[in-house]
Amino acid sequence: MNYIVGIDLGGTNIVVGCVSEDGTRVRGLVSEPTRSDLGPDGVVARMVETAKRSIELLKKEEATAKVAGVGIGAPGPLDFHKGVVLLAPNLGWKDMPLRSRISEGLGLPAALDNDANCAALGEWWQGAAKGSDHALAVTIGTGIGGGVILHGKIYHGASDCAGELGHTTIDMDGRRCACGNYGCLEAYASGPAIALRAAEAIQSGYESSLRARVGGELSKITAQTVYDAAGEGDELALEVVRDTATYLGAGIANFLNIFNPEVVVVCGGVTAAGERLFGPMQREVARRAFKPAVAACRIVPGTLPGSAGVLGAAKAFLDQKGEGLVA
Amino acid sequence: MNYIVGIDLGGTNIVVGCVSEDGTRVRGLVSEPTRSDLGPDGVVARMVETAKRSIELLKKEEATAKVAGVGIGAPGPLDFHKGVVLLAPNLGWKDMPLRSRISEGLGLPAALDNDANCAALGEWWQGAAKGSDHALAVTIGTGIGGGVILHGKIYHGASDCAGELGHTTIDMDGRRCACGNYGCLEAYASGPAIALRAAEAIQSGYESSLRARVGGELSKITAQTVYDAAGEGDELALEVVRDTATYLGAGIANFLNIFNPEVVVVCGGVTAAGERLFGPMQREVARRAFKPAVAACRIVPGTLPGSAGVLGAAKAFLDQKGEGLVA
Repeated sequence: MNYIVGIDLGGTNIVVGCVSEDGTRVRGLVSEPTRSDLGPDGVVARMVETAKRSIELLKKEEATAKVAGVGIGAPGPLDFHKGVVLLAPNLGWKDMPLRSRISEGLGLPAALDNDANCAALGEWWQGAAKGSDHALAVTIGTGIGGGVILHGKIYHGASDCAGELGHTTIDMDGRRCACGNYGCLEAYASGPAIALRAAEAIQSGYESSLRARVGGELSKITAQTVYDAAGEGDELALEVVRDTATYLGAGIANFLNIFNPEVVVVCGGVTAAGERLFGPMQREVARRAFKPAVAACRIVPGTLPGSAGVLGAAKAFLDQKGEGLVA
Repeated sequence: MNYIVGIDLGGTNIVVGCVSEDGTRVRGLVSEPTRSDLGPDGVVARMVETAKRSIELLKKEEATAKVAGVGIGAPGPLDFHKGVVLLAPNLGWKDMPLRSRISEGLGLPAALDNDANCAALGEWWQGAAKGSDHALAVTIGTGIGGGVILHGKIYHGASDCAGELGHTTIDMDGRRCACGNYGCLEAYASGPAIALRAAEAIQSGYESSLRARVGGELSKITAQTVYDAAGEGDELALEVVRDTATYLGAGIANFLNIFNPEVVVVCGGVTAAGERLFGPMQREVARRAFKPAVAACRIVPGTLPGSAGVLGAAKAFLDQKGEGLVA
């Protein structure tokens, strides 16, 4: 069986796995800290080493396995035709020719695409959006990333920056977003935004078990702390989760009216909030979006939390190879 | 030369023209009131008569012209595969098999698509978005319609209701929209919304020449009255136009971050406001959207105000015929 190495490069971790060409198997899934402090050369070396380790693990399991290429999902904006990461603030990178560096390091043909696009493609290929024609993925973490799959392919737009679903305005005079805009979905429903809304409420006088949970240091509240407190019935935490559902519902309703997709996959830490979040979120979408669009669409958590990016990076390699774009 | 009859069915007017297969000529462009009070059969009869008159005019100009089919742009939601208008509140229609009715009436193969999709396709084929790969059109009239052209084709979504760009939330706790949602772009920047914002401001005490312009009957203010007053320097009218630019800018910035298109074409009465609207609108988009998306995109008025829908309906016929969907 032929395998493709999938590399999911994040600001915190490098995740690598070897994916069978038919997408049914992921072998040698390994994760290492990114260590962006080591600079571009250091991170590339770590990516290459981690990939080599993944390939070794694959060969231990399947001695006859062949590795045909490597797909890389990286933070954007990037130019996937040229294989260059244009700007990655979390990594401190600018105009980094990542595709050729990884290709040379591993002696394999390589393809590059955006990390959120790869997560969406992975969920479409083997996860929650399998079998659909049009699917969106919204990945909620430190930021909110988006990936748009139309007719089974990543939609890139005119200059590879389509699908920034987290940076759509839901309240035009609202919270300032890190991107410079006001009222972006990300400014309300990213992990840090969820934590910040809870901390602000406590600062303004709300009682909550969250304060004791972080030893009084409100800056230590995270989205996970909020979900944990909500799980134990904390009123403020429950309200923060409900508000998050409302914000996400408004944002996703927009995507339904725009794309009329069959599936919206919600990925990332926020899925830890479970039905407490998904129920009200789905109801908010149903209240806001057009009925035929609501009827056509499932809104579901991702089913590949550890490997969607790796699977999607491998699939991006296969797709780009099919279009003659692999270098 | 082969021609396709293009029919643009609106709540107010039926516009018909004969479009050459290469899109360079529109012959026999005629317009008649829709008269939805006559019921579905009456309107279909008027559409057929108007189309026959257009064909007669074509044959007077070009005796050898052949008519190969008819494309119909109609209000949605509709099922273009089946050729049925599912619901058209402005016309009072439900489950209307418009494609077969027109096909039988004219004895020609026919295709059906959404009116806003057709306007977008027309501007892409022969107008302001010509030569682009990815283009959006936002048509501002009684409502705000949208059409999405990706890779040179109308994007329909999973159940033909994609591209409802007017029904994207820009202020989630904002004005109630006719669609039931809150804070839709349409609730702020449609023609009636522009008029309403001006009337509300006068009611709340603002001085404006608009009051005298409509003889004190504020309900008679229209978007055009506002543009006229702005053109003569009326302060309130100018403010309403500036606010409209801000609302449209926020909405269009979302579309840039989502689609990363090469062109956004703004069509409809609002283009009468000219540079006074487009200048601030483009600056608002540039403030809000990602720089690479802004750099990749022109935001321009439509160049086919009278015929985009007719051209697009004809092109929709050609495209659907190419895909074996014409009945």
